[in-house]
Amino acid sequence: MLDRRNLIVLFAICLCMVLSPRPSLAARPRPNQSVMAELIKSYGPSYVVEPVVTQSRPSPEAYASLRNMFFRYEESKALGSDLQLNERELQANQIIMATKMQEYNEGLITPHLFKPSQHFFKVLENIKATDLFRYMSAMPKGAVLHAHDTAIGSTEYLIKLTYRDNLWVCQNVGGLEAESLVFSKNQPAQSSDSDCTWSLMSDVRTKYGGNAVDEYLAERLTLFPTTKFDDNNAAWQQFMTIFSLVNGLLFYAPVWADYYYNALEEFLADNVQYVEFRTTLPVLYDLEDTQYTEVDTVRIYVETLKKFKDAHSDFIGSRMIYAPLRNTNGSVVSDYIKTLLTITELYPDFVAGFDLVGQEELGRPLKEFISELLAVPESIDFYFHAGETNWYGSSVDENLIDAVLLGTKRIGHGFALVKHPFVLEMLKKLNVAIEVNPISNQVLQLVTDFRNHPCSHFFADGYPVVISSDDPSFWKATPLSHDFYIAFLGIASAHSDLRLLKKLALNSIRYSSLTVDQQYDALSKWQPKWDAFIEYVITGTQRSAAPSLKLA
Amino acid sequence: MLDRRNLIVLFAICLCMVLSPRPSLAARPRPNQSVMAELIKSYGPSYVVEPVVTQSRPSPEAYASLRNMFFRYEESKALGSDLQLNERELQANQIIMATKMQEYNEGLITPHLFKPSQHFFKVLENIKATDLFRYMSAMPKGAVLHAHDTAIGSTEYLIKLTYRDNLWVCQNVGGLEAESLVFSKNQPAQSSDSDCTWSLMSDVRTKYGGNAVDEYLAERLTLFPTTKFDDNNAAWQQFMTIFSLVNGLLFYAPVWADYYYNALEEFLADNVQYVEFRTTLPVLYDLEDTQYTEVDTVRIYVETLKKFKDAHSDFIGSRMIYAPLRNTNGSVVSDYIKTLLTITELYPDFVAGFDLVGQEELGRPLKEFISELLAVPESIDFYFHAGETNWYGSSVDENLIDAVLLGTKRIGHGFALVKHPFVLEMLKKLNVAIEVNPISNQVLQLVTDFRNHPCSHFFADGYPVVISSDDPSFWKATPLSHDFYIAFLGIASAHSDLRLLKKLALNSIRYSSLTVDQQYDALSKWQPKWDAFIEYVITGTQRSAAPSLKLA
Repeated sequence: MLDRRNLIVLFAICLCMVLSPRPSLAARPRPNQSVMAELIKSYGPSYVVEPVVTQSRPSPEAYASLRNMFFRYEESKALGSDLQLNERELQANQIIMATKMQEYNEGLITPHLFKPSQHFFKVLENIKATDLFRYMSAMPKGAVLHAHDTAIGSTEYLIKLTYRDNLWVCQNVGGLEAESLVFSKNQPAQSSDSDCTWSLMSDVRTKYGGNAVDEYLAERLTLFPTTKFDDNNAAWQQFMTIFSLVNGLLFYAPVWADYYYNALEEFLADNVQYVEFRTTLPVLYDLEDTQYTEVDTVRIYVETLKKFKDAHSDFIGSRMIYAPLRNTNGSVVSDYIKTLLTITELYPDFVAGFDLVGQEELGRPLKEFISELLAVPESIDFYFHAGETNWYGSSVDENLIDAVLLGTKRIGHGFALVKHPFVLEMLKKLNVAIEVNPISNQVLQLVTDFRNHPCSHFFADGYPVVISSDDPSFWKATPLSHDFYIAFLGIASAHSDLRLLKKLALNSIRYSSLTVDQQYDALSKWQPKWDAFIEYVITGTQRSAAPSLKLA
Repeated sequence: MLDRRNLIVLFAICLCMVLSPRPSLAARPRPNQSVMAELIKSYGPSYVVEPVVTQSRPSPEAYASLRNMFFRYEESKALGSDLQLNERELQANQIIMATKMQEYNEGLITPHLFKPSQHFFKVLENIKATDLFRYMSAMPKGAVLHAHDTAIGSTEYLIKLTYRDNLWVCQNVGGLEAESLVFSKNQPAQSSDSDCTWSLMSDVRTKYGGNAVDEYLAERLTLFPTTKFDDNNAAWQQFMTIFSLVNGLLFYAPVWADYYYNALEEFLADNVQYVEFRTTLPVLYDLEDTQYTEVDTVRIYVETLKKFKDAHSDFIGSRMIYAPLRNTNGSVVSDYIKTLLTITELYPDFVAGFDLVGQEELGRPLKEFISELLAVPESIDFYFHAGETNWYGSSVDENLIDAVLLGTKRIGHGFALVKHPFVLEMLKKLNVAIEVNPISNQVLQLVTDFRNHPCSHFFADGYPVVISSDDPSFWKATPLSHDFYIAFLGIASAHSDLRLLKKLALNSIRYSSLTVDQQYDALSKWQPKWDAFIEYVITGTQRSAAPSLKLA
C-alpha cells in the first residue's frame, strides 16, 4: 500500500502534467495586451484575463489511473482515513458496509423512504428495527461530549419519577395540561404569573387514570411528534417549556442524584462510557427547606458519580461543563465566573470548564461578554456553543469567531461553520473539535434532510468531529446510537466505513477534557469493548471480555 | 486602507502571537512519554497526544483589534471583496444595503416570514413587490450561463403560441388534461403508446372556453404550485412531463425561431445581455414535411440571433452548448460527438461546447462515457452538469470528479461540491466556475431553506460562482432577477453588498465562452447600463444612457 505522503506527491505530479494551464490550440487566441491592461484597470486584477485553463486530453489509460489516484487522494483527506484496520476489523467492516449499503442502495431507488431523508420522529422506531442500528447500538462509542444534564434521562424514567410522593402539579382549569411540577409537603402557593392550580400528582392520577396521565406526560416531555414548527424560534419555545416542566421534578435534591445515576446507567447501556455534560447548576431544594447552593449541586454530582463508578468498573467517568444561561448581562456573567472559580477549586477533577447556553439567536452573543470572559484564569477551559444558526452574518453566526478567539477547546454545534472557511481552518490548526448533534439540528429546524447536514463537509475534509446527542430525551432518541446511525448512513459518504466509526469513538476520548494519562486509562476500558464488538459483528455472539456490552 | 496582502501578514503575526500552541499553566500536566508512545502505537500518529492547544488570554484591547482583523480577513476571502467601489457605487451600496437589511432584520424577528426560508412558490409574488427585487431587476446582471432552451420563455408567451393555427392537442377522455401538442394540417395519427385523442386546440377552446384552457395550461406548463414532492425523483418526473408537452409546440420550425427571439427579448428586459444556453438540438418539423436536421436547428438559431442583435444594439449575444440526453449508451454518445463536430465546424462562433443533460441520478454517469469524451478535440470545450444530487458517495456525486478531470470549463450546479473539498480546491486552481441555480435546486427538492444552500460556502471562500436560472419558465420566475434576489438575501452573508452583486455580473461575462476580446466588447455594453443602474439607485430615475434598462 502506498503511504499517504507518496500518494500525494505522485498525485500532484500527475495532476500537474495533465491539468497544467495551457491555452488550447484552436479556440482561444491570445488576448490583445492592451485589452488586458484596460480590463484590469476597470475591473481589478481579479478580472483575470488569461483564458480559462484548457487541458490536453489524456489517454483513456492515463485518465483511468489519474481518476483512481484522485479518488484515493480525496479519500485520504476524509475523517478516519488515517486509521489502519486489523484483520478482524476488516472482516467486521465488510459486514457493516454490506448492511449500510443495503439501506443506501434502497434509498437510491426510493429516496422518500430513505430514513435519513425524513424527519427523525417519523423513523425513530423503524431505525431501531434495522441491522445497522443494531451495530451502532452495540458499538462502544466512547463518550458523549455535548449533552444537557436535564435532557439525558429517558421519558420512561421521568414518568417513573412522577410517581414519587409529595409531587404536585400545576394545571390549567379543566384539563390535564401541566405547567409545572414541584415536591412539597403542602399545597404550594398560587403563583402570581400563572392561572394554574396545584394538585397532588397522585390525585390527578386517580382522577384521570394512571395511563392517561402517563400518556400525556410521555408526549408533554418530548417534542415528539411535531415535525414542522413555524420556524426554529417556535421549536425552541416548545423546547423550553419541556425544560421548565422537568425542572421542578429534577431540582428536588433526592431526585437530582437518582436522575443522574440513572442517566449514566442508560448511557452505559447504550455503550457510552464517558459523559461530559453541560449544566446550568440549578440550586436544589427539598422538603425540609434546606438551603442549597450551586456547590451542593456539584457535590451531589460528585458523590453520585463515585457511587456509580464503584458499581460499574467498565465506566470511564463523567465531568461537567458549567453552562449557565446566556440571556443575561455582564454583571451576572461575572457572578457566573465567581461560581465557576469556586467549584473549580473545590472539584478540579469534576469541573471541565465553562460555556453559556440557551437559544443563541435570542440570547446575547459572546461579544457582549468579552471582558468578563477574558478575566477567566487560563487554567479554566471554554467549551462554547457557537453557530447553532442558519442566519449567515448575524451576531449569532459571529459567535464562531469569538469562540475561536477566546480559545474554546471545542465548538458546540458549529452548524454555521461552512460559512466561515477561515474559522474552519483555525479549528484544524488549533485542533478544536466540532461537537455535531445531528438529530438536535433537525428537530430544532435547522436542517430537514440529513443528507444536507454541513457535517458532510467536516467528514470529507477531515475536521476533528465528535458526534453527540444534545438532548436525546426530548426527541425520544437513545443516548447516542440514533445520532451515530444518522451520521454514518445519512451524513457520511457511502464509502465511509468502520474507520470513520472508530475515529469518532477515539475522537470522543481524544477531545474530551481528560488529561492524556486519563485518556490512556479511558482507552484501556474502551479497547476490550471494541474488540468484543468486532467479534460480535463477525460471529454474531458476545464475548465475555466485555461484561456490559449490551446488544439492542 | 490597508491593502489585502499587508492585512493578511499583519493578521498572521497577531494570530500567531495570541494563538500559538502552549500548554496552559495549571490544568494540563505534560503527558508521560511512554503513555504517548503507546497511544501512538495503538491508535496511530493521528491520535495526537499533545494536549489541545491552550491559549493565553489577550487584553480586551488586544482582543478587540484581533477580532477586528479576523473579521476583515474573513471578509477579504469572500466573493467580491476584491472589488473597489467608486463613490457613486458606494452611495448606491448604502441604499441597497439598507433595503436588504430591512428584510433581513425582519426575518430575524419572524423567521417563518423571511422569504428565502420558504418555498419559492409561496413567495414569488411577494418577492416581486419588494424594493430589493426592484433593484435586482433593474441591475444589469450580465449573462445567464446555465439555462435550457425550451424552458426560458414565459408561460404567457407559451400560451400565446397555443393560439396559432393548426395546433392539435392530445387529450385523455373527458377532461382538459393535455398529453402532447403538435402542429399538423390534418388530425395526427393515434399513438400506439397512449390512449389520448387528438383535437384542434381551437376546438378545445370553443368547447371549454378560452379562459379555462389558458388557466389549465398556465398550471400544466409549470411545477407551480406543488411545493412538496415525495422526493426529487417525483419532482423530476413531473418536470419531464412539462418538457414533453412543450416539445411538440416548440419543435415546430416557425415557432422555434419566434420562441428564441421572444426569450432573448424577455431576458434583455430583465437586464440580462448575454445568454449561453444548453440545447438537446431537437430535429424540427413543419407542415410541409420538410426534412430538418440538427444543423438546421442551429442555423435557425444563428439566423434568429442575427435578427435579434440587429434590432437590439445593447444586446451582447448568445451561444449554445450542445447538451443531449445522458440516459443513453456509448455509441449514441459517439453519434452526439459527430454532430458536435459538424455544428462546431459550421458555426464556430455560435457553438460553445458540449454537455450531457437529464436527471443525473437516473441517467448514466460521466465515467461510462470517458473514452468517447476523451476523443473530443481539445479545441471543443466541456460544460458539464455535475453534482446535482444529495447522495454523497454515489456515482452521480462522483460526476464532479470526472467533470474536473475531463477539463470542464464550468460545473453545472455543483450542489454536492461541499462534500468534495479537493474538487473545490481544483476549481479555484483551474479557475472553473460553478453555475449555481438556487431556485431550481429548491423546486427540484435538493434544499428546502435557502439559508442552507451550499453556495453560502462558495461565496464565503471566494469560489468562482455565477448565478443562473436553469428553467425559469417552469417555476414562474423572471429570467434571472428572482435567483439574484434569493442569492443576495438568502444565501450570501448579511454583510455581502454591491461588490458581490457586481462580481456576479462580471463573473457571468468572465466565465462565459467568449474570448477575452469579445468579453471586452461585452463589458463595453454592460458598463453604461451599470452606471445607469447606479444612478437609478441613487436618484430613483433612469438615465438616458441606457436605452433598454427596464425598471420593474
